[in-house]
Amino acid sequence: MSKVKVGIVGYGNLGKACEEHVLKNDDMELVCIVSRRTNINTKSKVPVIHPDEVESLRDKIDVMILCGGSATDLPEMTPAYTKWFNTVDSYDNHSQIPEHYSKVDSVANASGYISIISVGWDPGMFSLNRLLSECILPEGKSYTFYGPGVSQGHSDAVRRIDGVADARQYTIPIDDAVSRVRNGETPDFTKRDMHVRDCYVVAKPDADKEKIAETIVSMPGYFVDYNTNVNFISQEELNEKHNKLPHGGFIIRSGVTGNENKQIIEYSLKLDSNPEFTSAVLVCYARAAYRLHKQGAKGCHTVFDVAPALLSTKTKEQLLKDML
Amino acid sequence: MSKVKVGIVGYGNLGKACEEHVLKNDDMELVCIVSRRTNINTKSKVPVIHPDEVESLRDKIDVMILCGGSATDLPEMTPAYTKWFNTVDSYDNHSQIPEHYSKVDSVANASGYISIISVGWDPGMFSLNRLLSECILPEGKSYTFYGPGVSQGHSDAVRRIDGVADARQYTIPIDDAVSRVRNGETPDFTKRDMHVRDCYVVAKPDADKEKIAETIVSMPGYFVDYNTNVNFISQEELNEKHNKLPHGGFIIRSGVTGNENKQIIEYSLKLDSNPEFTSAVLVCYARAAYRLHKQGAKGCHTVFDVAPALLSTKTKEQLLKDML
Repeated sequence: MSKVKVGIVGYGNLGKACEEHVLKNDDMELVCIVSRRTNINTKSKVPVIHPDEVESLRDKIDVMILCGGSATDLPEMTPAYTKWFNTVDSYDNHSQIPEHYSKVDSVANASGYISIISVGWDPGMFSLNRLLSECILPEGKSYTFYGPGVSQGHSDAVRRIDGVADARQYTIPIDDAVSRVRNGETPDFTKRDMHVRDCYVVAKPDADKEKIAETIVSMPGYFVDYNTNVNFISQEELNEKHNKLPHGGFIIRSGVTGNENKQIIEYSLKLDSNPEFTSAVLVCYARAAYRLHKQGAKGCHTVFDVAPALLSTKTKEQLLKDML
Repeated sequence: MSKVKVGIVGYGNLGKACEEHVLKNDDMELVCIVSRRTNINTKSKVPVIHPDEVESLRDKIDVMILCGGSATDLPEMTPAYTKWFNTVDSYDNHSQIPEHYSKVDSVANASGYISIISVGWDPGMFSLNRLLSECILPEGKSYTFYGPGVSQGHSDAVRRIDGVADARQYTIPIDDAVSRVRNGETPDFTKRDMHVRDCYVVAKPDADKEKIAETIVSMPGYFVDYNTNVNFISQEELNEKHNKLPHGGFIIRSGVTGNENKQIIEYSLKLDSNPEFTSAVLVCYARAAYRLHKQGAKGCHTVFDVAPALLSTKTKEQLLKDML
C-alpha cells in the first residue's frame, strides 16, 4: 500500500511535535516542512520549502498539516493552503469557528479538496465526547473541567503586563466541584467554583510586585472571575520547575434515563505534553482527510463528520475482531 | 421535519427501556412493539404486532430496534429483520461478531437496507474509545476495567448451579490496579489482578452451601481465574438490596509521545441502569441508521462507520456553534 504523503506547515512546538509523530506512523511519509525560515535544520532531515513555493508541491503531497497559531496564522493559512491541498488544522478560537468553517468550506468546495478544521483536544476529542454524551443522554447536564495544566493564553496575558519578565499560569480544577459532579449532583457553578488559577511570575528588577499582582487578579476575561494565586519566583526556578507544557481536563455528562436512573459519562485526558497530544490527533485526522478525499469528498469537515474507522490503520476485519 | 418512525422488537428489560427512551426523543415516533406476546399492555399504548405479521409494516417503519438477547435471538433476528427494515442491535458476543457481521452484511446488501450491529457500551462506546485512543496514541497500552456492577452472564451462571434459588454477581475493579494505570504505569496484569467477583447467593432449603461455594469459585471461564467472594443471603435481602442493574467501567489508554511524554486517555461510565444506558445508545444509532439509509447507504455497519454528527438532532450550524 502506498504511503500517505504528508507536509507540515510551521515549525514551532506543534510543527515539531507533528514531525516526530508522523515519523512514528508507518503508513505515512513526511515529504517536507514548509517554513519561511528555510535555513532551519529539521530533525527528520526532510527539505524545508518556502511558503512562496508550495504550489510546486501540489502533486507531491496528499495532505498538509497546518501548525500555525489560531490568532493570526490559521484564519489566513487554512483557506490559502486548501486551494491546493487537503488540509487539517487545530483552529481553537471557539467563538470564531463558524466563520472559519465557512471561509474554508467555500475554498474547499471550489478547489475540490477537503479540510478538517479544529482538530485537537478542545476543540477536538472534547467536542466529540460532548456531542456523543449529549446524544446518548439528552436529559442531563455537561461539565468541562480543565487542568491541572499550563494555559498558554493566560501565561501570555501575564507576560504582557508591565514589569513582568516571564510567567507561567496553571489552571487547576477544584476537587470538591469535580467530586460533586462525579457523584451525580448537577450544580450550577460559577467559573470561580470550578477552577483556581495559579501564576508563577518572574518580575523585572525594581518592578512593583504588588501592582503586578493586582493587575493580574483583576484582569477582565482572564482572571477577575477566578480565585487567582500569584507567586513571584526567579527566572532560574521558572526554567527549572515550570519548563513543561502539561495539560488535560475532563468532560462529565451527568444524565438521567427512564425512571430517574443516574447515568454518568466521563472523558478525561492527563497530558504531559499538550502540543504533542494535539499533534497526535492532527496526524490521525490527516489520514482521514486523505481517505475521505480519495472517496470523493470535498469541503470543510470537523471531527463530527469523520467516521472513526477512517482514523485507523487497521483493516475492517481487524477492527471487527480486535477493537469492537 | 417528519419524524423517524421506530419499531421495537422484544419487550424485556431492554425493549421496555428503549420504549421509554424513544418517547423522550422529539424527532422520533414509536409506531409499535413487535412481540409474540400480543396480549401485553405497552406503557406507551402503541400496538403490539406479532412477528409473523411484520412484513406488513415495511412502509410504516424507518428503523427497527432489535432488543433480543445475543445468545440465541439476535443471530437469527438481525438477518431476518434486515430483509425488510433498517435495523440496530446490541449483539455483544465479542468472539462471534465477525460472523454476525458477515451474515447481516450479505442480507443488508441484498435488501438495500442498513443494519448497525453491536451498539451499546461494550461493544459500542467502549469500542469507539478503544479505537480512538489507540489511533491517537499508537505507542501505548490499553486497559479495560469493568464495574462496580452486576454482570448478568455471571449471575445466570451461578443461578444454574444445583441448589441455588437466586443469585447476583458483582464485578469490582481492584483500586490498586486502577491507580497504577492512572498514574502512568503499564503493568502486565492477570485477570485476578484487575477484578474481584462478589456473589450474593440464595440457597434452596437444605442445599449444601459449602458445595455451592466450591462450585462457584472453581467454575472455569467464569470464576476460577478471579478471587471470588460468595455470600449467602435470604431471598428477601436479595430482593431488597440487589434489585438494580448498575454497571459501568473504564477504558484507559496509557501512551507515550515524542520524547517519552506520558499521555493518558480515560473514558468511564457509571451507570445506575445498564439496560437503560444501552437503550439510549441504541436510540441514537437508530437515528443514524435512518439517515445513512436516506443518504443511500446499505449493508452492515458498526459504531466505527458512523460519523458522530449523524447521532445528533442538532443542525450543522448548532454543532459548529455550541458543541465544537
